[in-house]
Amino acid sequence: MATATSSVADICRAAKRAAATLARTQTETKDAALLAIAQALQSRSEQILLANEADMTAGEQDGMDAALLDRLRLDEARISAIAGAVRQIAALPDPVGEVVEGKRLPNGLDVRKVRVPLGVVAVVYEARPNVTIDAAALCLKAGNAIVLRGSSAAQHSNAALAQLAAEAVVASGLPEGAVSLLRGGDRAELGELATQRESVDLIIPRGGESLKEALQLLATVPVIYAASGNCHVYVDAAADLEQAEAIAINAKVQRPGVCNAAETLLVHRDVAAEFIPRLLPGLAACGVLVRGDARTLSLASGGEGGRDALAPAGELLLESAQQSDWATEYLDLVLAVRVVDSLAEAIEHIGRYGSGHSEAIVTRDRDAARAFQLGVDAACVYVNASTRFTDGGEFGMGAEIGNSTQKLHARGPIGLRELCTTKYLVEGDGQIRG
Amino acid sequence: MATATSSVADICRAAKRAAATLARTQTETKDAALLAIAQALQSRSEQILLANEADMTAGEQDGMDAALLDRLRLDEARISAIAGAVRQIAALPDPVGEVVEGKRLPNGLDVRKVRVPLGVVAVVYEARPNVTIDAAALCLKAGNAIVLRGSSAAQHSNAALAQLAAEAVVASGLPEGAVSLLRGGDRAELGELATQRESVDLIIPRGGESLKEALQLLATVPVIYAASGNCHVYVDAAADLEQAEAIAINAKVQRPGVCNAAETLLVHRDVAAEFIPRLLPGLAACGVLVRGDARTLSLASGGEGGRDALAPAGELLLESAQQSDWATEYLDLVLAVRVVDSLAEAIEHIGRYGSGHSEAIVTRDRDAARAFQLGVDAACVYVNASTRFTDGGEFGMGAEIGNSTQKLHARGPIGLRELCTTKYLVEGDGQIRG
Repeated sequence: MATATSSVADICRAAKRAAATLARTQTETKDAALLAIAQALQSRSEQILLANEADMTAGEQDGMDAALLDRLRLDEARISAIAGAVRQIAALPDPVGEVVEGKRLPNGLDVRKVRVPLGVVAVVYEARPNVTIDAAALCLKAGNAIVLRGSSAAQHSNAALAQLAAEAVVASGLPEGAVSLLRGGDRAELGELATQRESVDLIIPRGGESLKEALQLLATVPVIYAASGNCHVYVDAAADLEQAEAIAINAKVQRPGVCNAAETLLVHRDVAAEFIPRLLPGLAACGVLVRGDARTLSLASGGEGGRDALAPAGELLLESAQQSDWATEYLDLVLAVRVVDSLAEAIEHIGRYGSGHSEAIVTRDRDAARAFQLGVDAACVYVNASTRFTDGGEFGMGAEIGNSTQKLHARGPIGLRELCTTKYLVEGDGQIRG
Repeated sequence: MATATSSVADICRAAKRAAATLARTQTETKDAALLAIAQALQSRSEQILLANEADMTAGEQDGMDAALLDRLRLDEARISAIAGAVRQIAALPDPVGEVVEGKRLPNGLDVRKVRVPLGVVAVVYEARPNVTIDAAALCLKAGNAIVLRGSSAAQHSNAALAQLAAEAVVASGLPEGAVSLLRGGDRAELGELATQRESVDLIIPRGGESLKEALQLLATVPVIYAASGNCHVYVDAAADLEQAEAIAINAKVQRPGVCNAAETLLVHRDVAAEFIPRLLPGLAACGVLVRGDARTLSLASGGEGGRDALAPAGELLLESAQQSDWATEYLDLVLAVRVVDSLAEAIEHIGRYGSGHSEAIVTRDRDAARAFQLGVDAACVYVNASTRFTDGGEFGMGAEIGNSTQKLHARGPIGLRELCTTKYLVEGDGQIRG
């Protein structure tokens, strides 16, 4: 692996040289390299845990909060899980060489569009050290060299993991430079990485808004921005309300801190009087604060199953929604709730406030389902299922390196195919153009 | 159509509203609109020609050179050709709704990845007024609204064509705002267009390097940069030399001013002594200036079929190549020629100097062909055919809006599919994530 004293440009150039070889490396060699990484993770777990301990100690001394410390922490079980994910990636079909489409032209030329690696992929990430291995495994399987840049908070863990991966792949016959780790932590380095147009084909940031904003200013290399998710569940007039309740709660609470969790619930007025008083106790039981529009508040405080039922012992789990709530990605146990007059109003609301990530309708009405799927412009549009399924693993892509809400190249989970480009192979017998 | 007094932002917002309707418009309605454009082109040709005459007169007064004036000029035959291209696009399969992939997940969710329109596509172009109609027809067929920005030199022609298209599509039932034309000509307007992230999904520039550079500085909207093409023909040791000669000449001279024309010829040393003296008279007859490396010059000036044969009457069609020639896209009757020691050296040369557009090998050796196709990183890699076939029309895509040498989203001809994105449609029966 490139040493910490190499320049960013040197590391990226070495990655580009490695990429040329990787692009022609057979699947079985790449898979053997991934299995070697998985093996090394387990045989060298002590060393990884020691490095992680150094990061944890520094984090505690710096006053890092408990949630971040938990993201940073590795243990035997987590290392096993990382190794398991690598083995799963090894078991996936190789996207490289897949024929996407092909035909014979009238002049006899045979044209095939085939998937080929992108080349060099840089992944810039924060905190969680497992990304080091996940990202490396996905990129290598797709035939790409990877340049990793983690945060300084995880520097020892990342260095141990990247070192191990780099050694394992070289021992398996992949080229030097296939996996490298930048020092991390300073903005000048990010700027240098983001402008290596000659050698880096794609940057994928995995981190907060400040990282994205920095890249938007700095990057001349193409970037796929992983998504923020302002996701909605719409309960239609024709919803099965039991199903709707389960989906709304699951979409909100099963893992509220991730991008495919729901942030706003829209309820058709025809079922609002029954559904909202029914749903709110369940949300309250999960600790969810509801920010409701006027109709929601009114339904919650009056009528059967009203406010008393859901806010026992004076606990206030209900507030009035502000305009800004519709545009907020809480990533927390907070849910905005609005009653709408029609399916069209729900679609319009989602069009205005949604981030194009994952949107769900709950309905038994076939026309409503179809209108929602056609009318909502998002990466994933669900009928009668939780938004939480937007995930490379859930979609059978094996793993993902993020979720794209942009429309170009990749929309939705970024898996092996999305880490590739295509090439037209054209074969003839001397054809010239007339 | 939006008037010239509307702001860029207003026009783009109107296009976004139109796009929401267009995305749900049926194929037969879109096709009828295209046929109405084709019809209007012919029934209103007099009006178009009058507008074009105004541009031609202004161009002559401004001292525009003959080549540019020819690109600007319309006549009945050219208008017929434009109408014919629109009819061809109408006859193509609709990319919208195409299921790209799909499966049932273990939990019973049915997942389909379907093609959907991008939304609003802006096309920024120079000189040739036919682009107004070509681009509009392609974008509309793919369900996108289009915002056009031509050059001031073609302003009257573009206005007449865009007006006609906008009227024809509205008369056919497509929404207002589906086709709009910006005033064109000033840099501030380009900057405004290039930052309409809320409403514009993609900008495609069709013009020279200065336009691309301007967009690289200005654009926050995604851009697909149409290609420059430094394309190579490599004549392998095992080439059929008759075929090689025909391909090399075709790739250079059939239309030298376009991006898929060859700029450098690489010749394996084993056939150079036979091939170069054989080829040069043919190139000279077509008026091609050869910039050769030392071995090429030596072969051309000595031996059988040498220099005397190819530069009759003292005409000098042979110069010494400089280092910079290998990186130059001449777009003219100039060809750089280099003798290489091996296939590997040819691949390396192309890797260093090529722009990733179109690269060809001429060989009867199956292993050489395969190594070249695997080893050359370009949008289109040819065996025994001219590079001139890289074209949406030739590839059976009907038409193209440019040729991409970038690796993300679209690589090669940008046709109807490349003017789309995808959306995952997920259908369930109440699935929630455990």
